[in-house]
Amino acid sequence: MLIALDAMGGDHAPTINVEGAVETVKEQDGIDVILVGDDALIRQELQGKRFDPTRIRIIHASQVVEMYDSPSTALRKKRDSSIRVGIELVKTGVADAFVSAGHSGVVMATSKMVLGTSNGVDRPAIATLMPTLKDAFLLLDVGANVDCRPENLLQFGLMGNTYCRLVLGKTEPKVSLLSIGEEDIKGNELTKEAFKLLKNAPLNFTGNIEGKDIFSGRADVVICDGFIGNVVLKVSEGLAETILKMLKQEITAGSSGRIGYLMLKPALRNFKKRTDYDEYGGAPLLGINGACIISHGRSSAKAIKNALRVANNYSRMKVHEAISKDIENCSKSAAQV
Amino acid sequence: MLIALDAMGGDHAPTINVEGAVETVKEQDGIDVILVGDDALIRQELQGKRFDPTRIRIIHASQVVEMYDSPSTALRKKRDSSIRVGIELVKTGVADAFVSAGHSGVVMATSKMVLGTSNGVDRPAIATLMPTLKDAFLLLDVGANVDCRPENLLQFGLMGNTYCRLVLGKTEPKVSLLSIGEEDIKGNELTKEAFKLLKNAPLNFTGNIEGKDIFSGRADVVICDGFIGNVVLKVSEGLAETILKMLKQEITAGSSGRIGYLMLKPALRNFKKRTDYDEYGGAPLLGINGACIISHGRSSAKAIKNALRVANNYSRMKVHEAISKDIENCSKSAAQV
Repeated sequence: MLIALDAMGGDHAPTINVEGAVETVKEQDGIDVILVGDDALIRQELQGKRFDPTRIRIIHASQVVEMYDSPSTALRKKRDSSIRVGIELVKTGVADAFVSAGHSGVVMATSKMVLGTSNGVDRPAIATLMPTLKDAFLLLDVGANVDCRPENLLQFGLMGNTYCRLVLGKTEPKVSLLSIGEEDIKGNELTKEAFKLLKNAPLNFTGNIEGKDIFSGRADVVICDGFIGNVVLKVSEGLAETILKMLKQEITAGSSGRIGYLMLKPALRNFKKRTDYDEYGGAPLLGINGACIISHGRSSAKAIKNALRVANNYSRMKVHEAISKDIENCSKSAAQV
Repeated sequence: MLIALDAMGGDHAPTINVEGAVETVKEQDGIDVILVGDDALIRQELQGKRFDPTRIRIIHASQVVEMYDSPSTALRKKRDSSIRVGIELVKTGVADAFVSAGHSGVVMATSKMVLGTSNGVDRPAIATLMPTLKDAFLLLDVGANVDCRPENLLQFGLMGNTYCRLVLGKTEPKVSLLSIGEEDIKGNELTKEAFKLLKNAPLNFTGNIEGKDIFSGRADVVICDGFIGNVVLKVSEGLAETILKMLKQEITAGSSGRIGYLMLKPALRNFKKRTDYDEYGGAPLLGINGACIISHGRSSAKAIKNALRVANNYSRMKVHEAISKDIENCSKSAAQV
């Protein structure tokens, strides 16, 4: 598998991007990488690193998308950006997948324009894995679609289900709708209508799930519109950080606390690992006609490596084609009702 | 001040409700309590407790609203419930305020019907305090209005501002709109329109706030529709519990962890206190023409006591009248533009 990696995207680019690529080809057979971005900068980062040179290539891109660029500006004025060039490589079949830790809105808009949506998909969505006590669950949409119709939520459910089956290896994922009560009739206009559609879809739809239960591991896929998904994702990030800070304040304030804190460090490290974004690696764009994975802007080399692994699995399992089939099947079964 | 307390609402009623009332009259001058509910049950709970009998009265109510009752059923069929009787006591001027740890939807619907909304208020909202690293912030709406118009969000901002000034004692509360980006143009259709209204309102409006920043203490009041507010509230509850469970798992798994955990117990206790719902006591119904405070269903006696204290302050500061004035002022200033 040959994966195009945006070498210029993310807070620590190109250093950690190049590092992630080098570690990947060292550790994983079957994944080769194209580093897309400023040729000179990338060469500089590669200098002194030991790796098989046949497995990492560079393709130059003269522009970089900045976080303040709007998707429309990027599409019009940055046609030679690392994002655009990387996605074109997927379009032309040179690369099997694309990974970026850059501007997620621009990656989404560019993918949509260059690769198009999978057959039958109305709106692609960004899906992200979140940790629970048992396992992780897939939350979507987390920001691609801020205003949704019930049909969009149905498709998010179908796409999340396909991804969960093929990439996360769950045989019959439990798909739930994020709402403010478990009963069918609880929710807002959008979720109440979406509930009816999901109930009749060829899915293991387990009904509404409340915010307090999403981290229990009761659902494998949690569906919501992109505004709420983004709020949930960011509230969770912010709260987890705040709780750890508060705990540290309380611990170091006490006299025996300091020693306790030292003794606890291994546990805190394990905890961080379990909740660490880096472990999950990347958020797939579901519904795009090709494999595109977004990695967090704060990504480390490990996160990039994990995103490349996700991209590899996505492409190997031909998720975008499976999504088209599953959506078509759903339309057929709805037509028969 | 004489406050009507729903003796039958909440998971541990009437025991903790009666306990909370008794502790209140013992500790706080100026708050007398009417216990509303099953006379015999309440008498039984009061038995053996020492308190000034002139400061706690009982008013009998023959029915109890159950959590599975819908607001419409409760309104039609439970006209002698502790919730209904308690709110009628406010209406007739017998009590100055009402506190319930029962069915929040029924408390809201009954208050709206019996007391009505404050002059100028379109939709009342439920506001709740949430902990941050510095202080607490007020989040509203957290469930009264699942589908909102931009004008509703404007009024939530005005009402939250009034409450924050009068009851929480902040001179110029920082009011923010929950969204998915800080820039004006980020958000969904609802928040983008609400942003324009809030910008022109007589408020210290500090713009959009992202989910990851709400716990930083940057905002005193955070506005959103009731669906999102409820999701944020419940996600936060669920995540905080999950993080503590994960930490405990990790800590007790390690060999030195067990000792570390014992040494840490005081810190964990302090942390719990800082984030404990019970400390905040109660969520006011803002925009109702009278003082109604909702307490968590899982309330302890301490939570009830704190809710009575909040009700006392709310009533003393005549928040519902101030809200009417502030909304009228906003309409006037908008008319002059």
